[in-house]
Amino acid sequence: MFEEKWAARTKLVEENLLHELQSTATIDEKILQAMEYSLMSGGKRLRPILLMSAADAISNDGEKFIHVACALEMIHTYSLIHDDLPAMDNDDYRRGKLTNHKVFGDATAILAGDGLLTLAFEVMTRQEDVEPKVLLRVIREISTAAGVAGMVGGQSIDLQSEGKQINLMTLRKMHLGKTGALFLASIRAGAILAGASREKLSALTKYAENFGLAFQITDDILDVEGDEKSLGKPVGSDAKNGKSTYVSLMSLDEAKFFAEKTVGTAVDALNIFGSEADFLRELVKYLIGRSK
Amino acid sequence: MFEEKWAARTKLVEENLLHELQSTATIDEKILQAMEYSLMSGGKRLRPILLMSAADAISNDGEKFIHVACALEMIHTYSLIHDDLPAMDNDDYRRGKLTNHKVFGDATAILAGDGLLTLAFEVMTRQEDVEPKVLLRVIREISTAAGVAGMVGGQSIDLQSEGKQINLMTLRKMHLGKTGALFLASIRAGAILAGASREKLSALTKYAENFGLAFQITDDILDVEGDEKSLGKPVGSDAKNGKSTYVSLMSLDEAKFFAEKTVGTAVDALNIFGSEADFLRELVKYLIGRSK
Repeated sequence: MFEEKWAARTKLVEENLLHELQSTATIDEKILQAMEYSLMSGGKRLRPILLMSAADAISNDGEKFIHVACALEMIHTYSLIHDDLPAMDNDDYRRGKLTNHKVFGDATAILAGDGLLTLAFEVMTRQEDVEPKVLLRVIREISTAAGVAGMVGGQSIDLQSEGKQINLMTLRKMHLGKTGALFLASIRAGAILAGASREKLSALTKYAENFGLAFQITDDILDVEGDEKSLGKPVGSDAKNGKSTYVSLMSLDEAKFFAEKTVGTAVDALNIFGSEADFLRELVKYLIGRSK
Repeated sequence: MFEEKWAARTKLVEENLLHELQSTATIDEKILQAMEYSLMSGGKRLRPILLMSAADAISNDGEKFIHVACALEMIHTYSLIHDDLPAMDNDDYRRGKLTNHKVFGDATAILAGDGLLTLAFEVMTRQEDVEPKVLLRVIREISTAAGVAGMVGGQSIDLQSEGKQINLMTLRKMHLGKTGALFLASIRAGAILAGASREKLSALTKYAENFGLAFQITDDILDVEGDEKSLGKPVGSDAKNGKSTYVSLMSLDEAKFFAEKTVGTAVDALNIFGSEADFLRELVKYLIGRSK
């Protein structure tokens, strides 16, 4: 049941991502191809799925908000393209495919990222069936989460931490920015679009914070214990690059315990919901399950 | 009178750009410093001034829309930072100062651009005294103009034209994207925010199209005839880089004639307005005056 819904939602997101691209006017085909290359090259589509699932928990019509959901995936994808650049992490492969700049060159990859980030905001304004005032609030939350208070800020902390031993507090702040902020915005956007009460929004916010943390700890564990083929990238790269992770700052066993505990907190945050939040409960358990 | 108003408006924009930065929450000071370095390093502040002047022509309260005006300058600045990168134009100086990546490094410059583009959308949502529906329409126009149908698309055409002889049609399409689209969006955003009628919006759109064209021809003329010190960059760089320009595709005299004619068309488009559009009339004449 959970896996079927997951698969159906992934399919829905991919169809709509392609549709958003095809609905976009352009004066240059090449840049749109470069954007499509990265946008359509797989991935878990977690952020759009989180948005729709959070909306489902409120009003059971999450799929309605597919435009904003797709916009989140565009923001995530642009950040990966820029992150992979030679000036940044200098990665040749992502999800088993050549990275954007390896196929299109550095200049086009920079522009493809810029194009996706810009398109994300255009796509948000395509969202229908929402009060303009509510949509503006959502655009504001997403832009804040994607900017210096969130993703861009976290990337900058990451740059400054390279090759340095950082403490758990800095690591947490960096991840809150790099990945946590956009997860949080995805879930909150879904809840706000669906008209969540203050109490339910607050519960989903707590879920989201712990979801993001559990996701990151699991990612760090997978980098040590994971299977190269299913990850689509080399394992052990964090240690090789001298990166501080939850596993390097704790022991592997401690990290696993911390992950389990965080998942428990996320699930508990949903106690005020009934079965309408089952998918969110399964989702956070499933993600951490990857590391077992 | 014109120059006093211009100076006052420039000052207003600069004060508010700084204020927008200072009102922005961040988890990392360094990235905000890099953004401020480029955002506050001068420039004509044309796009914000165009937005406010277009709004003045409608309702005489252009300064009210300072948030959206500042957002346009942030988008312009991000595009300059990314454009100057080694992977793109590889410029060391802009406006007589070291470019962003020369001071902060390539990785931070990429992020500073990303941060400014993202912040632009956040800042747009800070605009008050506008119907949410109208503000959403403006955000949509600006995102379209900044993306693959406009600025990013034009940059991509520029990349593909490097070292090639291109024809006048491609040159025009490239400039419509690279600079024209954002000028157009600035003027249309001002008009829409101020509640322009269809007829007035259409007149201002025609003005904007010709403004952008006149601006570009003048820029190409200045690259041949200009004064290095007042331009803040070397003259003759287009010819040195083998770039096609209005001057290389026409003669210098033809380009000057074309510029004059385009300014005339821009001014004529404003015939349905009275003195409330005088600033816009002066502005386009002033800009082309730089090349005399």
